[in-house]
Amino acid sequence: MRRTKNRLADGREIIYFDFDSAPKRNHKDLRNFPKKESFSGQMRYDILTDEWVSVADHRQTRIFHPDAAQCPLCPSTAVHKSEIPDSNYSVVVFENQFPSFGSTEKLNIKPNPDWGDEIPATGRCEVIAYSPQHDGSLGKLTDIEMELVISAWIDRSVELAQNDQIKSVFIFENRGPEVGVTLHHPHGQIYGYPFLPAYQQKLLEQGKRYRELHARSMLDDVIARELLADDRIVFQDANWIAFVPHAARWPYEIQLHPMRNIAYMSELNAREEKSLASFLPKLIRALDRMFDFPLPYMAGWIQGPVNTTQPREDFRLFMRLVSVQRGKSKLKYLAGSESLMGAWISDITPESAAQQIRSVLELELSE
Amino acid sequence: MRRTKNRLADGREIIYFDFDSAPKRNHKDLRNFPKKESFSGQMRYDILTDEWVSVADHRQTRIFHPDAAQCPLCPSTAVHKSEIPDSNYSVVVFENQFPSFGSTEKLNIKPNPDWGDEIPATGRCEVIAYSPQHDGSLGKLTDIEMELVISAWIDRSVELAQNDQIKSVFIFENRGPEVGVTLHHPHGQIYGYPFLPAYQQKLLEQGKRYRELHARSMLDDVIARELLADDRIVFQDANWIAFVPHAARWPYEIQLHPMRNIAYMSELNAREEKSLASFLPKLIRALDRMFDFPLPYMAGWIQGPVNTTQPREDFRLFMRLVSVQRGKSKLKYLAGSESLMGAWISDITPESAAQQIRSVLELELSE
Repeated sequence: MRRTKNRLADGREIIYFDFDSAPKRNHKDLRNFPKKESFSGQMRYDILTDEWVSVADHRQTRIFHPDAAQCPLCPSTAVHKSEIPDSNYSVVVFENQFPSFGSTEKLNIKPNPDWGDEIPATGRCEVIAYSPQHDGSLGKLTDIEMELVISAWIDRSVELAQNDQIKSVFIFENRGPEVGVTLHHPHGQIYGYPFLPAYQQKLLEQGKRYRELHARSMLDDVIARELLADDRIVFQDANWIAFVPHAARWPYEIQLHPMRNIAYMSELNAREEKSLASFLPKLIRALDRMFDFPLPYMAGWIQGPVNTTQPREDFRLFMRLVSVQRGKSKLKYLAGSESLMGAWISDITPESAAQQIRSVLELELSE
Repeated sequence: MRRTKNRLADGREIIYFDFDSAPKRNHKDLRNFPKKESFSGQMRYDILTDEWVSVADHRQTRIFHPDAAQCPLCPSTAVHKSEIPDSNYSVVVFENQFPSFGSTEKLNIKPNPDWGDEIPATGRCEVIAYSPQHDGSLGKLTDIEMELVISAWIDRSVELAQNDQIKSVFIFENRGPEVGVTLHHPHGQIYGYPFLPAYQQKLLEQGKRYRELHARSMLDDVIARELLADDRIVFQDANWIAFVPHAARWPYEIQLHPMRNIAYMSELNAREEKSLASFLPKLIRALDRMFDFPLPYMAGWIQGPVNTTQPREDFRLFMRLVSVQRGKSKLKYLAGSESLMGAWISDITPESAAQQIRSVLELELSE
């Protein structure tokens, strides 16, 4: 794997991840871009919920569903200069032009934030394009192409964690207009949050509480008990296990755990990476078979916190993939109960969802 | 106000709320319905987040966007027998045919729920039709019609709280296909939850923490400080105050508080009810002016918990109204950051949202 760092016309970083045989990536970004303005987003403390909300009103103007000829993630051509100056690439990462977090100011979060507290939205937002193919998808990658994506995920996780203002690195993908995706070219995102997001914070609290009660790792026990229950497991090999969780809240929801208790993607060993690279595209292809169209989904890697004093032992890495599709022509909406009260209603039993996923996954795995 | 209780063909309760001059409501439901089967929904404990998720798979078959002639919320006619047997009504409440909570089994929640814990989804789900007009809306109600709706809200809050299995009564409305509404006839819902929903639980925890730190009510102070800041307030009279919260997370988000610190709708006095009945339809009409179409929204009353030992002092009643519309043709989607990590990104500053709401509200208030 070869890694090449460069700068776009407005000063943003771009990083190419290539196979060793690829040509050199030294194309200059020829767009006539002004230097990027300093980032003005902020975060506000919501005292009602003890959460930080990022306000990024410069994002309102971002590009909305551009057609293929205008795609900012396709390689550049003589007539169209995209975000990627080169005429080809394998996997590429660059700083988001419309970031939610991007200030380089030093954080100063008080121990007990109060109503009215605001801080600059320090952190970093990156885009990762998985492939130069505009109509590609994670599911269309070959094993070695997927390995390159995984290498890029790990590279970004490690590099972003070196910024001590960042407390959590989140690698994720939104796919489909149903989840608001504005660019159709296959891509994911990488967020470096300057705080622990609510879900991760809750997981850590629950992990701590569980250890105090049972002197064991909560997520170790969850996996052991899903294995015992067996009826929600959709995949297992020597390195990975995937299941629909016992209390799934989305119509289709999958947790994918390495069998070893590790907290960060960078701790994956070569066998785990290879096994993941082989499985993940098959999983996506299987999900696309369910309703005979690309399943809209959100997927992300929940890693351990970074640059914090949180104890490592209460956390264990996993990937979460959820879909809003609850039938061939039905979507799950987060309505009043979920959105206003945080009380989730699910319309499909996790066991029935697991059975549906298993049946399409078996077709992919047997091919 | 006159209240008439009756039963539908399958045994569900229906309650009419009428002006004193209305005819008697003694029409029999003539539909050939089998007795309602006993409710089989369940709740599962999500140990990763310390939340209960309700699984109600019988809801998958519920009616989806019926046309006006088939509307289950219009009064019955000779050719169409709806959920309301009468040929007219003012405000009517009935038990939901497809409830998320409906078991009458006695709850048995362990103090420290564990992975795998399941309980019957005890509680109650009701539908409230605001008006017999199929194309009506809360915004089209006259003041005295709105007063009748408020009376029904209070009646249901009080009656559901008498069931000691119910811990929280939530009165809410989802409006618009953008938030998944399957019936267009103007209506809301009433949920009796057998647990404290996550948002309410969090508010109580934060209220307690605030009181310990400052020896004052958190929500009292939030209101006082919003008044001082002034730039997010959209409405104020002697009885009510409405503002866009300092850390709003939805594009348009309004908190409506009575000026007095009360915890339940049943504590509203006559002046507060009248003032609310006058303001709320105007607010909805104002929101419908923003983009020249009915704004999709979710709105609900966050009341204090019931049948619990939670201290009353840490809670204060308010209404929350949020919209997913972030522009005339743009929706806010909850993507990976919000859905998977619980980290909210807002595209509009609360001050700018407040200014937009104020400008349309002024038009309504001056008419």
